[in-house]
Amino acid sequence: MALKIGRGADIPPFRVMDVIAAANAHAAKAGPHDPRVIRMEVGQPALGAPLQAVEAAMAALGRGHPLGYTEAFGLTSLRHRIARHYQDWYGTSLDPARIAVTTGASGAFPLAFLSAFDPGDSIALAAPYYPPYVNILTALGMKPVILETDAETRFQPTVAMLERLEPRPAGLILASPCNPAGTMLHRDELAAIAQWCDANGVRLVSDEIYHGLHYDSPIATAAAFSPSAIVINSFSKYFSMTGWRVGWMVLPEDLCRAVERLAQNMFISAPHIAQVTAEAAFDCGAELDARREGYRRSRDLLLEALPRAGFTRLSAAEGAFYLYADISDRGEASTDFCARMLRELSIAATPGVDFDHRHGAHFVRFSYCGGEAEMAEAAERLLRW
Amino acid sequence: MALKIGRGADIPPFRVMDVIAAANAHAAKAGPHDPRVIRMEVGQPALGAPLQAVEAAMAALGRGHPLGYTEAFGLTSLRHRIARHYQDWYGTSLDPARIAVTTGASGAFPLAFLSAFDPGDSIALAAPYYPPYVNILTALGMKPVILETDAETRFQPTVAMLERLEPRPAGLILASPCNPAGTMLHRDELAAIAQWCDANGVRLVSDEIYHGLHYDSPIATAAAFSPSAIVINSFSKYFSMTGWRVGWMVLPEDLCRAVERLAQNMFISAPHIAQVTAEAAFDCGAELDARREGYRRSRDLLLEALPRAGFTRLSAAEGAFYLYADISDRGEASTDFCARMLRELSIAATPGVDFDHRHGAHFVRFSYCGGEAEMAEAAERLLRW
Repeated sequence: MALKIGRGADIPPFRVMDVIAAANAHAAKAGPHDPRVIRMEVGQPALGAPLQAVEAAMAALGRGHPLGYTEAFGLTSLRHRIARHYQDWYGTSLDPARIAVTTGASGAFPLAFLSAFDPGDSIALAAPYYPPYVNILTALGMKPVILETDAETRFQPTVAMLERLEPRPAGLILASPCNPAGTMLHRDELAAIAQWCDANGVRLVSDEIYHGLHYDSPIATAAAFSPSAIVINSFSKYFSMTGWRVGWMVLPEDLCRAVERLAQNMFISAPHIAQVTAEAAFDCGAELDARREGYRRSRDLLLEALPRAGFTRLSAAEGAFYLYADISDRGEASTDFCARMLRELSIAATPGVDFDHRHGAHFVRFSYCGGEAEMAEAAERLLRW
Repeated sequence: MALKIGRGADIPPFRVMDVIAAANAHAAKAGPHDPRVIRMEVGQPALGAPLQAVEAAMAALGRGHPLGYTEAFGLTSLRHRIARHYQDWYGTSLDPARIAVTTGASGAFPLAFLSAFDPGDSIALAAPYYPPYVNILTALGMKPVILETDAETRFQPTVAMLERLEPRPAGLILASPCNPAGTMLHRDELAAIAQWCDANGVRLVSDEIYHGLHYDSPIATAAAFSPSAIVINSFSKYFSMTGWRVGWMVLPEDLCRAVERLAQNMFISAPHIAQVTAEAAFDCGAELDARREGYRRSRDLLLEALPRAGFTRLSAAEGAFYLYADISDRGEASTDFCARMLRELSIAATPGVDFDHRHGAHFVRFSYCGGEAEMAEAAERLLRW
């Protein structure tokens, strides 16, 4: 008898994974004299966890630490260290009881959505966006409401856009710096949106995973402007610990116990060795800041070279490690364009269709977190094209 | 303006976490001459990952492996190694394409439920049960249907119980060996239930997390009896890798791509270092089998001592590392009983209320995966009580 399949099975893929597979296949069939594939499709730092953090992991393993489950919200010492980080970076004082260590930022989204929203609820967010926001919301029966943005507002939402939303949504997801555009909400803009959310009964979910990777203006956290906001962050980007799967949330007091109960049942705890490593990563600021300066140099180089290579409409890339290029003047859909660029130049990049169903065919995302020499080589290949 | 809170916030806690906290508090206030608290409340092996597996992790770290994201379904080499494990342990041949590496068994449950079921669907399972089954289903808007069991059927469901279910549920969760009772479905029983599920359009979810920890009869996997079953397993129990957060699923072909899409969006991948460690753990059979023999000796000792200490009605504990004691003849609810046992004997155990809302007040779960000397000491304290 044929068995039923759930509606959750209709979730779209996170297509960048398919782009990665295509780049892998292209690399695999290249001969010894073919140009090396330059990976600008993936949002993953070329280097792993910082040195002292890796040493902390090895030390824990070397002394036979059993590395059992931690409490659902993580190691107490790590939660305190994260609270101190808010003091250090933002001048914001936070009770460590409001910090939950999670299995990456990915693990935080279902906890945030299930604790704050119900199936059928509308959650607003700007397009272009990180695809799993929409895909996870949909799998949980929630309704993403897309705010159309463009370069005019740096691909970020504004209070004016939110004012036009009738009825009010249950929630709003913000991302600054954002993936895929690398653009930011500045301090006053973030404050205004957080205040609008509180005044209008809209739960703010602020994805701050690219904090630390900002190049021009200072960074602000939603936790400083609203006690009701859910802040989500991760050790994957600035801290370069993608595959360790460890992140955190700053929770509003009304959701702390609910999220703890959800985490106990759905995750038990984040990986223990990753928590030990993450705590040590806070003491690796010099190494991590040096990596950020490398990204900055790659960004500056690409911002100079890409327009000369014909990519004249680039996002105001103030943070993260992405450039979002409007290629609508090139007369080729982004999926075809990216396939051709991979074939002819051995440069992998991500078509915008994953990030924006409506306008994505006109955009390409370039990630510049690979090595600096590779980014320079990519610029040269594009200039010669 | 007060913000809404989702229905998911109503999820009950996984109460063993609270019992652990009480045992921690009791231990913390004990003086230097007080008896040491014996931990029989937690389902976590006393020892961590096996030696060679830890060495593999250290080697990867030592050679500067960047440990980035893996593919959503995990390292290819690990998926092949898991497939080989089915050949070795069960004589069952499996396509590695059907193996998904997950963030513990915990990470597998939402993937299984969202891919196979819809909100509102009924999913049957026997009580007593692992609490997160019910709590995750409920958080996702699905309806657990409890099958009442007792020692008569070794706390396991039977085809006769399933036949009485009208209308048929969308799914059935089995666990063998099970938590909290440590009892098993024998090969012919499992085969009969799997066949009944296929014939009746009921999706079988088989939790096989305690495989490898079975002491009397041989073990069977649902994957051998039904191509439609979802099998869930983990490196946390036999392989002793609780805090590493790595497990796996064997997927039916009709759900492979759906689960992959869900995993890409909700997890990206399981922790990379845990996958490396898990793969090496397959070569640690001698060390792990020796640990299992230690559990067996503790089980045999407790099965002999507990009846003399007044626990005359014990579950037929053929697997896992739990004994489920019916204390209804003691005239004290299990929560009070466990609190008093902790106070007077410094032995922590888990009241049955977490595992069975209806009958749990009459049951206590003893976990015997602590050190052998501690288990012997526990038996002595109980005999003196």
